[in-house]
Amino acid sequence: MTTIAPARNVKRAHNFNAGPAALPLPVLEHIQEELLDYNGTGMSVMEMSHRSPEFEAINNAAEQNLRKLLAIPEEYAVIFVQGGGSLQFSMVPMNLALAGKPVDVLHTGSWTAKAISELKKGVPHNIAASTEAEKFVRVPRANEIKHSPEASYTYFCTNNTIEGTQYHEVPAGAAPLVADMSSDIASRPIDVRKFGLIFAGAQKNLGPSGVTVVIVRKDLAERADKNLPTMLQYRTYIKEKSLYNTPPSFAVYVLKLVTEWIESEGGLAGIQKRNEAKAKALYDAIEASGGFYKCPVEKASRSLMNVVFRIAGGDEAVEKEFARSASAANLVGTPGHRSVGGMRISLYNAVGQDAVDALVSFMREFQRTRG
Amino acid sequence: MTTIAPARNVKRAHNFNAGPAALPLPVLEHIQEELLDYNGTGMSVMEMSHRSPEFEAINNAAEQNLRKLLAIPEEYAVIFVQGGGSLQFSMVPMNLALAGKPVDVLHTGSWTAKAISELKKGVPHNIAASTEAEKFVRVPRANEIKHSPEASYTYFCTNNTIEGTQYHEVPAGAAPLVADMSSDIASRPIDVRKFGLIFAGAQKNLGPSGVTVVIVRKDLAERADKNLPTMLQYRTYIKEKSLYNTPPSFAVYVLKLVTEWIESEGGLAGIQKRNEAKAKALYDAIEASGGFYKCPVEKASRSLMNVVFRIAGGDEAVEKEFARSASAANLVGTPGHRSVGGMRISLYNAVGQDAVDALVSFMREFQRTRG
Repeated sequence: MTTIAPARNVKRAHNFNAGPAALPLPVLEHIQEELLDYNGTGMSVMEMSHRSPEFEAINNAAEQNLRKLLAIPEEYAVIFVQGGGSLQFSMVPMNLALAGKPVDVLHTGSWTAKAISELKKGVPHNIAASTEAEKFVRVPRANEIKHSPEASYTYFCTNNTIEGTQYHEVPAGAAPLVADMSSDIASRPIDVRKFGLIFAGAQKNLGPSGVTVVIVRKDLAERADKNLPTMLQYRTYIKEKSLYNTPPSFAVYVLKLVTEWIESEGGLAGIQKRNEAKAKALYDAIEASGGFYKCPVEKASRSLMNVVFRIAGGDEAVEKEFARSASAANLVGTPGHRSVGGMRISLYNAVGQDAVDALVSFMREFQRTRG
Repeated sequence: MTTIAPARNVKRAHNFNAGPAALPLPVLEHIQEELLDYNGTGMSVMEMSHRSPEFEAINNAAEQNLRKLLAIPEEYAVIFVQGGGSLQFSMVPMNLALAGKPVDVLHTGSWTAKAISELKKGVPHNIAASTEAEKFVRVPRANEIKHSPEASYTYFCTNNTIEGTQYHEVPAGAAPLVADMSSDIASRPIDVRKFGLIFAGAQKNLGPSGVTVVIVRKDLAERADKNLPTMLQYRTYIKEKSLYNTPPSFAVYVLKLVTEWIESEGGLAGIQKRNEAKAKALYDAIEASGGFYKCPVEKASRSLMNVVFRIAGGDEAVEKEFARSASAANLVGTPGHRSVGGMRISLYNAVGQDAVDALVSFMREFQRTRG
């Protein structure tokens, strides 16, 4: 991707939103430049037929870029679906659950709870591990997982945005692994062969909301009953290269540009380095605060994507003041999820080191004046 | 909506695409202007939390604009869903079909055929009328419709993009009417009270692909089994004002701008006048060609949105040449759907009279030199 537009004198916030989240500025400038006329067609991408050679090229490039970045083997399909992770909570069991066999779930917080709610509507399942008793301050250890002997698949969430936890090792097991990777896909290299299915809403690390990436081993997609609604079968998207019906074309186009930007930053190895440095700077600042800032998450489970912390022993008035002052200082999206309170700083791919540095300076100053 | 950016010297095509389709230039310019910084937030709309006051205001305005434009009564919900019309083919019966009672369908071509395919997966249904024997060159007449006495609902498609037909009167009946209005919503005033449910992908008259408008009588949404997947129940969207999960926020934002543009053009009464004048100019040109251009559709069923015609008795070589030459003359999107051939000119809201005039001139010249 080349940036055509020169950087303009425009206000840009340091954006720590949990998703939809920051996008790379060169990507936004590129979109802006060609918004009225994509590549000499005289049309915006939003105005182009999804059957046109131009859009088919965008769609193919989005898939191929993901294949290259994540080193996705040929036996996996890469498809673009609508409905977000929330629809995947139902689509995964519809397509992959085997009759009379349980789904194993590793329960780590709000997002796996939502997936479990959908399973409760009629799919046998087994909580193979849970850290609920510890208020989800860590992910399960390998020796705590009690697999069912004949599970259809084992389901987990690689990164828990609300609790600020992340798996730093892929859990082992005999059944195919299904991962909700919405909040850390493309943030670090992974071995796709360890998974049966990966899904991820694009709106954190890959693009805008409105498109969900599903990476699925093609043989597993064949488990589905052909009597399922056409739009709820993975095989429809595989067969039609995600063009069975009108796709969310603009979102796919932005995803294509974001994947090109990731490649230009050194691919996933380069992005991982950036992400580790950003998270280290912030966790170090928290540790150095002498308890004024405190992260409740166990060190081995801490997320590089969503850093959660409390201030002054969880004083809500101080936390509100922090969010207000941060926002006034152009640091947006610092409050924690409404269900847990506290602060949450999301450090997805497009958040720069400069944003983290600005935040860390702000935190020091905030502690100095209010601590 | 105010246009901030001055019109720039940029190539713009006359765009007759069937969807995704032309968008109003002032809307695109507005999007372009605020792409890096929405309203002083320092963020693109794509980067904003869907729980932010800014996005909630956009979401509410999109709903309220539709309510005003279409005069939607209070007892109807207006919600934004993902998955396009194709997912609605399944969601409608999941939510509205009553146990043991049939769905009545008026069959008018490719789109109702797709809806019927989904019903065939287990929902009792009755083809209450069909014009298949006449190759769908018209919609059914009122006296041809054989309603079931106890139908859950009567399903039809108000405008058939592939066949070029459109209902100019709403079919009567005792059961709630469900309309696929994807290709003519907001193109003319309608009486919403005549319908139980209306759905429409935005990508023809209302915005980009990726968001589907559903207008549903709230009591009908309560028919659904609460055990359905959360994302496939209309009541989820009604209860959460379409914000149960991350919505396709950018598409909703564009829809908001397009509805404001429609309002600025005189609302649906003004748009209807524009649309009637455009269609009349094109049908008149076809009629005036002495048979060189020929529209197969019965006059009373002709669509104002999609004008289909054959050239030189359906000579495919001549039709290909027409599309090629038109494209070279900056008139794009003229070929008919691959399933039927011929030509198709889509005249959605954002297509200007200037585009139609340019096409009519081109048609005269094409006939003069190749006729």
